Parts: sequence; structure tokens; C-alpha cells
Amino acid sequence: MTYDVIVVGGGHAGIEAALASARMGQNTLLISILAEQVGATSCNPAVGGLAKGHLVRELDALGGEMGLLTDEAGIQFRILNITKGPAVRGSRAQIDMDRYRVIARNKILTTPNMSLIQETVNALIIEEGVVVGVRTHLLNEYRAKKVILTTGTFLNGVVHIGEITQEAGRFGEFPAKGLTDSLREAGLNVGRLKTGTCPRVDSSSIDFSVMEIQDGDELPNPFSFRTDRAEFARTKKQLPCYIAYTNEETHSLIEGNFHRAPLFTGQIEGVGPRYCPSIEDKINRFRDKERHHLFIEPQTAENTECYINGMSTSLPPDVQRAMIHSVHGMENAKIVRYGYAIEYDYVDPTELKHTLETKKVKNLYCAGQLNGTTGYEEAAAQGMMAGINAALSLQGKEPLILRRDEAYIGVLIDDLVTKGTKEPYRMFTSRAEYRLLLREETADLRLGKYGHALGLIDDAQMERIETKRSQITEGLKLLEETVYTPNKEFLAFLASIDEEHITDKLTGIQLVSRKSFELDKLVKLIPSFAELDPYIQEQILIEAKYARYVEKQSDDIERMNKMLHIAIPEGFDFRSVSGLSNEIVDKLYKFNPPTLQAASQISGITPAALDILHIYIKMAGKGK
Amino acid sequence: MTYDVIVVGGGHAGIEAALASARMGQNTLLISILAEQVGATSCNPAVGGLAKGHLVRELDALGGEMGLLTDEAGIQFRILNITKGPAVRGSRAQIDMDRYRVIARNKILTTPNMSLIQETVNALIIEEGVVVGVRTHLLNEYRAKKVILTTGTFLNGVVHIGEITQEAGRFGEFPAKGLTDSLREAGLNVGRLKTGTCPRVDSSSIDFSVMEIQDGDELPNPFSFRTDRAEFARTKKQLPCYIAYTNEETHSLIEGNFHRAPLFTGQIEGVGPRYCPSIEDKINRFRDKERHHLFIEPQTAENTECYINGMSTSLPPDVQRAMIHSVHGMENAKIVRYGYAIEYDYVDPTELKHTLETKKVKNLYCAGQLNGTTGYEEAAAQGMMAGINAALSLQGKEPLILRRDEAYIGVLIDDLVTKGTKEPYRMFTSRAEYRLLLREETADLRLGKYGHALGLIDDAQMERIETKRSQITEGLKLLEETVYTPNKEFLAFLASIDEEHITDKLTGIQLVSRKSFELDKLVKLIPSFAELDPYIQEQILIEAKYARYVEKQSDDIERMNKMLHIAIPEGFDFRSVSGLSNEIVDKLYKFNPPTLQAASQISGITPAALDILHIYIKMAGKGK
Repeated sequence: MTYDVIVVGGGHAGIEAALASARMGQNTLLISILAEQVGATSCNPAVGGLAKGHLVRELDALGGEMGLLTDEAGIQFRILNITKGPAVRGSRAQIDMDRYRVIARNKILTTPNMSLIQETVNALIIEEGVVVGVRTHLLNEYRAKKVILTTGTFLNGVVHIGEITQEAGRFGEFPAKGLTDSLREAGLNVGRLKTGTCPRVDSSSIDFSVMEIQDGDELPNPFSFRTDRAEFARTKKQLPCYIAYTNEETHSLIEGNFHRAPLFTGQIEGVGPRYCPSIEDKINRFRDKERHHLFIEPQTAENTECYINGMSTSLPPDVQRAMIHSVHGMENAKIVRYGYAIEYDYVDPTELKHTLETKKVKNLYCAGQLNGTTGYEEAAAQGMMAGINAALSLQGKEPLILRRDEAYIGVLIDDLVTKGTKEPYRMFTSRAEYRLLLREETADLRLGKYGHALGLIDDAQMERIETKRSQITEGLKLLEETVYTPNKEFLAFLASIDEEHITDKLTGIQLVSRKSFELDKLVKLIPSFAELDPYIQEQILIEAKYARYVEKQSDDIERMNKMLHIAIPEGFDFRSVSGLSNEIVDKLYKFNPPTLQAASQISGITPAALDILHIYIKMAGKGK
Repeated sequence: MTYDVIVVGGGHAGIEAALASARMGQNTLLISILAEQVGATSCNPAVGGLAKGHLVRELDALGGEMGLLTDEAGIQFRILNITKGPAVRGSRAQIDMDRYRVIARNKILTTPNMSLIQETVNALIIEEGVVVGVRTHLLNEYRAKKVILTTGTFLNGVVHIGEITQEAGRFGEFPAKGLTDSLREAGLNVGRLKTGTCPRVDSSSIDFSVMEIQDGDELPNPFSFRTDRAEFARTKKQLPCYIAYTNEETHSLIEGNFHRAPLFTGQIEGVGPRYCPSIEDKINRFRDKERHHLFIEPQTAENTECYINGMSTSLPPDVQRAMIHSVHGMENAKIVRYGYAIEYDYVDPTELKHTLETKKVKNLYCAGQLNGTTGYEEAAAQGMMAGINAALSLQGKEPLILRRDEAYIGVLIDDLVTKGTKEPYRMFTSRAEYRLLLREETADLRLGKYGHALGLIDDAQMERIETKRSQITEGLKLLEETVYTPNKEFLAFLASIDEEHITDKLTGIQLVSRKSFELDKLVKLIPSFAELDPYIQEQILIEAKYARYVEKQSDDIERMNKMLHIAIPEGFDFRSVSGLSNEIVDKLYKFNPPTLQAASQISGITPAALDILHIYIKMAGKGK
């Protein structure tokens, strides 16, 4: 059997990779170990969050599925960081994990050019450095022009709970064995990482009345630009989450069992996610912290089980039970599924090109947790880009490589393939140098054109995007062009909307940039905006407030792009540059980059270091 | 941790066992290997069928869950054998396998006195011949007063597809190891059985237009007596099934691959279900049959995957693909999940008492496929009875043992524990000697009182049952008491409803017993019946038509019950009894039963043989 593209693994990366490929007309096969678990959320029942919400929006803007799946299976929608700057706000949704899987599998099964088969891939077929197919545990051989691996935590997965270890790809599921050998034989650098998850508790055994409630937004905001916002806000049913806390008893209990924690006994060798630590790790690192947040998330719409976010652990079952019982509101809580840690093989992402194709094996792509990331969203983003680039390559077209200044997806993949990672990589807004340009709500304006060109975003949606763009642009133009003078009438108006008076002339942009100038005042200032959707009004206001910063950041990008082309003189004395750490100097000597661009791709070389280098190179040039 | 009752396994038997126990007030723990798969339908997405429908109705009458789950998750409802006698009609439903699992798990999680934990039991804790708990693979020890094993195909499960074998409890799921050792150590006789399942195919790759369609009933009939019939018929959405056929190409293909069939190569040692054979077995046994039926069942409401019923197989994947492609309408069909066979350990059910408690280990119960049965319904029925009897025993009450003349469940358990089984046991109406008394629609009338006494059927439902009973009884009485004479007026009436005239006086019962007398005529005959629910009218008509047979069968039962108490004289010469097979004679000598009752419990001793024995014993007595 021959396909254009084979995707190995039916998780969040695999779903996006397979759908992108099939929708771009490639005959695609998705191979999953257990069809039931396509689209399973192995960890918490939530999508999005800070920076991760950005990834989902960008995926959606390109024509990906995660936003739509989340809108349909979602049971709570909230915008995080709402009090902070719009660029670092993040959308987050709680999902019904049962519905999510069902919808995902049905989407796969109803997409043209797509086949789904329940098998375990245990070897790649590589001929003269080119992958040409896969072999499965049922002795099937599937041939393909492209193979995308999205194996998540399944490659030689080993689950740890206390002293117990079990070979498993997820708790209760078979691992994928053999495939790592194929990767190693092909010369790829394979490492070992660790991640973990929290206990799940019977909801009926929790006393929610003593916990802080956290409701969804009053007007829930859908993830997908293609979801009807008004209809969604009107019909979406939401469930609350709850907040609880660990306490001294919890902490001393955990500390008293450090000697039984696989994380500390040497039983676990893989490196875990720094920003998603287990509770034992948190207690160990922050011994003086009095309490830690726990976020109690319903796993499904029926709210029969809760995910105890913040209690990721691989401590033994008896300690897990005692830990849970020590928390106010969970004194009688019943664990349904124990938390566990899992170790798995990952591919050093510096083995990959920006297309996510491996450098050593032609036509082989890797995406998702396999590349050393953590999170459904990071996985999905990579899956989509691998799927798109596999299809584009088959069509003889240029690859789609998103730049760091146009998408978080660009930042993610650039970070991975140029810098590699020694621990599970998680997206943060701070990783994006140009985050002011990368607001969630501009994802469609930034990336819709690519999705449309790929055929993943239809004409009607593209038209909606262009309408949004022109409404915002015209709104901004109006604010720019309107000049207000401190005459009596206008001063009275300002007073009426509770704004401080002005003493000099100023433009609409300048006026609305004031921190105090909120959305409800905008329509009073420019009554014609009343005709616009409130969502568009908000975008205009945000863009207006950001105008100065955005301009500056655009300039920075231009400057940086110019700078990157600057050559580093042969034999340049990096040691002479003050302000560079020894580590950076060592790396520069080791890799000997010919340009600043090349230097920027070395792991650990920061934009600040590049700036300094740039100055010294210029000085050196002048000195000659 | 200590419980009243621990149920090991979350399949159809485990669900009923756990719910019955918890609802009867026992603190119950259900242990499942994978919480996601509680209530999974491992084989086809359907519940009920001939004789199996009876079991579900009986379960429901006792207060079991399967009928309610099926009504909620059902996507097609049909009464089979509608043209045959009402006693052998069977209700069958197609179900959405995704919904079924979700509803089942949520039901477990929301039932008071119930805990669910995701672990694998790998040992029983037995102290001095009494089970006192279980040990799990996470090294947890759970103590309980009663342990019910409902392990299905998971005990040392091994999956076969062609030459491939894999240790698995179901395809893609871990087996349960270790537990068999506990059973063997306790002296229980453990054997090996085999079952199998069919390939699942991507619905979008099937050409349904060339197949025969099979719709659900126009007025779908719910399984549960507690479901509102009118509301159900009005609102239930149904999907069709389709019928296709194998052909000569299919058969020669399969025959040509017999040398690769695990069933014939000696790879599979366990005995399979005679009445649910694999396709290779059917081709082998019925070589001259030109075609076999295939029944194409949607797996979910979205109909994205179909179950190809009739193609159970463990042939290698390439043969499975070719087999499927040889069928008209499936030339381009894409397999999503391959069919497979599975071997597993079972407990010889003669190790059990009628309560399903083992004879050798006190407080240990076994139910379901573990006892050598096949089918969700057989499993659920046993699970429920084990759960009920475990709870009754804890409450110091008499066990509930259903007689063969009052329930198919009675027949099932009596057959199992007295005769044992060497192959997966399936229920048939022919197994019930008194099947005329055991119609599906009388299950509530027969068993509701037990469910009510156990607290599993509420007062309101019991009242509805009593109303139904009295309406039927009064209706029958009216028919019995009404005498029709062949006067001009009545003859004209008979002509008007297209019934043959009468020449002598006769009762209503006699009149409506005519084959030609259908339901629409009943209200014309007795206009007061119009006030009754059409369902009740139908029950009256059926009971009226059956009256003679039912009476005779009731007499038979009485006669048989009397007969069973008759002693077999010591040293009785069984060889002198003509009409007994050598096998039966051998068994009678071997077991030397003291009474006909004891003789009846020997495997292979038929009611006919008992009748003959009875006559000879009487003759021998007279001869003295």
C-alpha cells in the first residue's frame, strides 16, 4: 500500500499533520496504536493558556483543527491576563476529554484523502538515506513519499509510580518499541525526557463549597476565527473550575517521602519540564513557600472526574492519597487515576530543518513531543507545519517557514531547530522578541493569507479576514487623521466621559492611547464606530494604544534583519568583546559563525549578545 | 482500604455487579485497567438479539443498567423474529459505542457507595480458604468482604492476527497477569478459551447503495421497562444497518489461506464459540454454502466506522483486506481495525455455586466471560446476580437464585454451574425448557418483585408493573368470561373484521386464539380495551393466544418439580433403561445421583432422559 504521506501517531501533532496533508490533496495515512485514543488529552483537560493560546489561534488562522475541536468540545472559556497588556493575554479553554476524542476521530474518518489504521509502527523503511515507508507490528509494510513521526511519549515509554515501572506509552497503553532503533541507525541523536501528570479524583468526593470558584468568561470567546462569535457566546454552556491549596501538612508529607520519589531516587533519568514541575520538585525547590495553588478542572461536561492540576507526581499511591487528603475540600476525595511520570525517547530537534524534515533522512519529518516539547498546543503547531511542508514538498513548492516576527509558531520551530533543547520546551510570550506584533487576535490577519494560499482557509473566510483588516485599518486611519482641539465643547465632552482635559491639540490615536480610555468611550468619541462589531471596535482600540510600540518593534525587526547579514570577520577576537559570558564566547569559538545570522542560530546566543557583537564588529571595521 | 465488595473488571459484567452491590448499600470498589474503557463493547456495537434480548429485559426488571444504557446510547432498535411466536422474539439495538462507554463510566462515578480506580489486579489475597482482598500492579492492597471477578478476556489474554501474537486483554490493551495463578493456587480448575472479532471499516469507503438496507422498527421499542415508551418512540433517532454477502471469490481466498489461519495451524489452542464462528471456520465447515450474510453495523451515531459482522477472523492482514475487497460494495473499503482472535483463561463454572460464589474460596464470586460465556448480555446477567448475591450474603439474607422456569438468567446460571462448558456458552431460546413462560415482555411481571424487594426497583416502577399485571389479568378474564354465540349480529361483526364465522358458542379466548386474529381486531371485539395502552392490548392478545400452551407448560413444570424429588433406588440398573445413550448411562454410573434432581444437574442429562428414567423408576417400584 502506497501513500503520499504517512503520519505515525494520533495525538495532537498527528491530527494536525494528517489533516493538513490530506486537505492539501495528499493521500494520507494516519497510524494510531489505539483508534479509541486518537485525540486523547493525556494530561489536563484544557487547551490554550498563556502563549499556548497564541499557538492555537495561529494554527487556526492557517486552517488547523485544534481551535475548532476546542470550540466544540469546550466546557469553559477564559481569557487569562485580562488585566495585562493585550499582547500577553492568552485564551484558555477547559474541554470535555470524551467529546474531544470522539470529534477528533470522526473528523479524521470523514476527511477526504485520509485513511486511519490501528497499528503500531515499529520500524522505518529507509533506503539510501531516504525514508520510503514504515513497518508495523502486524507485519504490514506501508510505503509513502513522506513520513511524519508524531509519537508523543510513546517511544520506549516507561511509566513510573513510586517504585513501580511499566513499559507504556501512556498509563494503560502499549508503548512503541523498535522505532527508536530505526532513528538511531539513521544516525539521529536521540535522548530521553520525562514528563508527568496529576491524579484524577472522583468529583462527587470533593467538597467544592470550601474552594474558590473560577467561572468562565461571561461572554465566552471562541478559539477559532471560523466560529460564529455571537452564536458561540449565546449557546456555549460552561462549567466552573475551582482553586484549592496545598498546605504545610501536604508539604511535610511530600518531603517525608522524598526517599520514595522516583524523581530523587535515580529511578527517573530523563529531564522533566522546568515550567511544569511535579509537586515533589516544587516542594524541593521552594521549601519556604507556604502553599501552592491547585487548579481543579472538570474532565468532562458531566463533571464526574476532576483533574488536580498542580499535583503532578510520581510518588507512590499511598503518598498520593495522603497528599490529596491533606488539601482542604479533599479530605475524603477518592482518586480514580493515580498521577505518574513517564520517560520517553525524543529526537534532538537540531537534527531538523525549519521544515521539520530531518537533515539526515530525506522525507522524514518529526513533530510534537517527539521533538522535545511539552504541551498539546506546541505539538499541534509542529504537526501542522510538518504536514504543510511535507505536502508542499510533494507539490514541488517552496516550504512555508514562519518567521519569528510573524508567528509564535515561527519562534517555536526556530528555537527548537536552531537551539535544541535539553528539557521539555514550553512556549512563553517572553520567548517571542516581537510579541507586540503577535497578539492572539491578529493571528488571522498575519497568517490567514498562508492558510488561504494552501487551500486550508476558504475564500469566504479569507474575505472575512480582509474585511476585518480593512475595518481596523480604516478605524485607525480615522483616529490618526482626526485632530482634537481643547475648545470648550470638546473639553465638556471629555469631562462627560470622565477623561482628563487636554491643553494642546492631539490626534485620536494620542487620545485613546491613554490608559484610562476604555472601549465604551471609543464609540462616544467616534460615533460612526457604533456600526462596527464590538470585537472590531476593541481591535481598533488595542491597535491604537499599541501603535507607538508596534512601530518601534517593526523598526527593531528591520534593524535586526539588516544586522543579521553582517559578516563576522575571520579570526575575530570574541574575547575582546566585553559583556559576553564565557559560555557564549566558548560557543562562538566552537561554531565560528560566518555571519551574525549564523551566530543567532547557536543555542544560548541572545539578541542582546548579538547587539553587542554587532557594535564591536562595527567598531573593529572603523578601527581598520 | 477496606470495602464491602470489590469488583475486578469494568466490562458489562463488572458494571452490573458493582452497581447492584453499591445500590444495595454495600461500599463497593470497581477496579478497571483503563478507566477510559469501562463499558467498552469489544465486539460488535449491538445489545440484545435472540434470547439475549430476554436477558437484558430480565436484568432490567431486576433493576440492572444494561437496558437503560442501551436505550440512551442506542441508534437502532429492532424486534427480531417478529413473524415468529412472541416467545422467541428478541429485541436488539445498535448502540453508539462511544456514548455507551461515556454513559457507563459516568453512571459508575455518580452512584453512591461506589469507588472507581484505574489499576490492574494481579493477585487475590486468600486467607484460610477465604478471599479477603486483592493486590494490584501498583502494589496497592484493597481489602474486602467479597470479591467479584469479571475479567472478561483479560486473564493472560493473547491476541492473534495471522502469525502475530501479542499479550493483550483486548487489542491495544494490557492483559491481566498473575490473577490466574491465584485461582490455580486456590485449587480452581482454569481452562483456556478463544473468541474473536471482525474488522472495522471506514464507512466513507463503503458503497452502501449496492447493499440491502435494514432500518430500525418504525416505532422503536425501548429495552428498559423504566423508559417512557411513547417519548422514546417519538424522539429516538435511528440509523440503518446494511446487509452484504460473501461470494465464491471470498471463499476461495479464505480457503487458499487456511495454512496461514491461526485457527488451523495450531497457533490457537483455546476452544471458540460454536455459534459465533470465525469466517474461516464457517468456510471450513460449510464448504458448499454459496454465500454468507454480512451485517454492516454503524459503530457510532456519526457512522464513521462500520463493524463487518459475519467476518470474525484472525487471518493475516493482507487476507483480511482481500476478503473485505471481494465483497460487493466494499471493493474499495478501508480497514481501520483488523479482526483478531483472543485466547484467555476461564474458570470452569462447575467450580461455582448457583450464587456464582466459588465452592472452594469463600466470598469469591466469578461472573461473565470469565465463566466461559460469550456475549455482553450473558456477562451482564451473571454480573448482576453475583453483585446481588454478594450483597445479600453480607446482609445475612437468603440468596436470590432464579429458577429455570422463571428466567433465562436462571437457565443461564443453572446450565453453567451444573453442566459446565467446554466452549464459550451463548444463550438461545431453545435452552429454556419453559420459554413460553419467559417472554421478553413478561420479564418485569416475573422478576420485578425481586428487584423491588432488593431495593433496585423503586415503588413507582413496582406500581407500574402491578398496573400492567392487573390490566392484562383483567383483560384476559374478560376474554375468558365473554361468550359469543353464532347469532346474526355477531356473524355480521365477524364478517366485518374479516374473520371466519363460528358455528358454536365460544369464549373470547378461543376466538382471539385464531392465527388470523390480529391486534387491530381486538378493540373492535372488546371496545373497552380502547382505553388501554396499545402495548397492554398486545400483551393481552399474546397471553390469550398462548393461554393453552402456557397452562400446559405450567403443568409440566409442576410435574417436573414433583418428579425431581423422586429418589433413584440404590444400585439401579441404568443399562436396563432403553432410550438412554451410552454417554448418559456412563455418566449416571459415574456420578451415581441419589435423586432425579441430582441426575438433572449432570452435564448432558436432558429433560427427555429424565422422563424416561422417571418411567423406569416407577416401573421398577411397581415391579417390586
